[in-house]
Amino acid sequence: MHQPHPECVTTVRVNYSETDQMGVVYHARHVVWLDIARTEHLRQAGYSYRDLEESGIRLVVTDLKIRYRNAARYDDVVRIRCRIQEVGSRRVIFTYHLEHADTGMALADAETTLISLDAEHRLTRLPPAIITALGGGARATS
Amino acid sequence: MHQPHPECVTTVRVNYSETDQMGVVYHARHVVWLDIARTEHLRQAGYSYRDLEESGIRLVVTDLKIRYRNAARYDDVVRIRCRIQEVGSRRVIFTYHLEHADTGMALADAETTLISLDAEHRLTRLPPAIITALGGGARATS
Amino acid sequence: MHQPHPECVTTVRVNYSETDQMGVVYHARHVVWLDIARTEHLRQAGYSYRDLEESGIRLVVTDLKIRYRNAARYDDVVRIRCRIQEVGSRRVIFTYHLEHADTGMALADAETTLISLDAEHRLTRLPPAIITALGGGARATS
Amino acid sequence: MHQPHPECVTTVRVNYSETDQMGVVYHARHVVWLDIARTEHLRQAGYSYRDLEESGIRLVVTDLKIRYRNAARYDDVVRIRCRIQEVGSRRVIFTYHLEHADTGMALADAETTLISLDAEHRLTRLPPAIITALGGGARATS
Repeated sequence: MHQPHPECVTTVRVNYSETDQMGVVYHARHVVWLDIARTEHLRQAGYSYRDLEESGIRLVVTDLKIRYRNAARYDDVVRIRCRIQEVGSRRVIFTYHLEHADTGMALADAETTLISLDAEHRLTRLPPAIITALGGGARATS
Repeated sequence: MHQPHPECVTTVRVNYSETDQMGVVYHARHVVWLDIARTEHLRQAGYSYRDLEESGIRLVVTDLKIRYRNAARYDDVVRIRCRIQEVGSRRVIFTYHLEHADTGMALADAETTLISLDAEHRLTRLPPAIITALGGGARATS
Repeated sequence: MHQPHPECVTTVRVNYSETDQMGVVYHARHVVWLDIARTEHLRQAGYSYRDLEESGIRLVVTDLKIRYRNAARYDDVVRIRCRIQEVGSRRVIFTYHLEHADTGMALADAETTLISLDAEHRLTRLPPAIITALGGGARATS
Repeated sequence: MHQPHPECVTTVRVNYSETDQMGVVYHARHVVWLDIARTEHLRQAGYSYRDLEESGIRLVVTDLKIRYRNAARYDDVVRIRCRIQEVGSRRVIFTYHLEHADTGMALADAETTLISLDAEHRLTRLPPAIITALGGGARATS
């Protein structure tokens, strides 16, 4: 019925604050970039995470994996290709490919698993409309 | 009646994440160190900021001034000398001297002004006991 | 001869990582936004800070002042209006006005003073072309 | 010959800057805590990472995995138990268990793989003395 949700592409430009004395982006900053990318992914799917949270649902990261391939450097524009790997009633898995925007050089690959919690931090179901918007349904797992 | 509140001394060790590609601590990190220092100052005065916030009072920074003197570097231990410059019924001004713990070399001087807000973000009075503990009272201004 | 350098306008969108448990942007993040804004200002004036640094010149913050007026919140778009207040042979002063992009509500005003250092961290003169591009010259101070 | 290298225990206290509007520690901060923990681990093994880097060797993170179990909160003291899982001639794998210092409640488990690069960012061998100090040798893999 619904089409598989496309890849969402976001770019960030490396600020000086993100570099370390090795002259490259400090490896914890990539975690923030993943957050920026999936927030935009939700927005493109028609959902603002702000609205989702105000409606009482929180998506909380339970698993994070990053493989770093090449260093990003100051003032580089980094492209983040974000996909939804799996969407279930209480869980979403996003995968990411980070690359240098000018050259296409791979910078990192990553995966985050998020679960859906209510305002009291209990596991809760995602609204069906969001699951569908994110490409779940027939493909959905629980 | 009460004694002037003493200087509170806190130390932090510079982590790699705090450096930038100039090989020194990125200048926004000092702002976090000031926060760490005044939190410890409150604790030494007998108040945990966590308890204060849970009681419905928030101290919010309205003014920040930093003069940077020398660079802090990776793995340095930085000593922060924090004093209360002025404490009033709705406002506290902290001053800070940052120095290299081994050599005493001055790294920065800073000042932050904080106001007291209630849970609805309205200006509110600090509890008298805190004002006294922070050295206010006769010296207190409003 | 040269025209006064115009205001540079940059926007940033608040990411979740920038919020704190008070539900607003943590006050140290503004310092990074100022950096983003003046980097774009230099770029619009025809200079990339990356190139400047590779040529052996570093602009180092010596003074920082921020007055916080209203809280920025998650997912807000923040507009930073950056101006050059003063440009001399070894020093540049930037001023900033931060506002909510949708409503125009003032969020903060700030000022940073930067000095020009060479690769050995000694005070050095800015190239005359940059001083002119930044609006200095007749107005320049040393 | 050498004894298996013991667990290194480090503690950090959660600062306000590390919280997010969910009222818990933002998940990227754990990555910095892992860095703090392995730096202390190296120090206890007799090596300062600063000296190592000054001697021309850099340890660069290539893989990061974190499983988040429970939220850390403002002002909590977090204990990080860091172990060396594997040490080879060009690679070290650290594992970490993060727990609430007061209650022992598990907060997260993590693993980082680091490779050894020279000043030109080429793969290089770790000095044998470090490999031994970190518990490698008979157990060492390459």
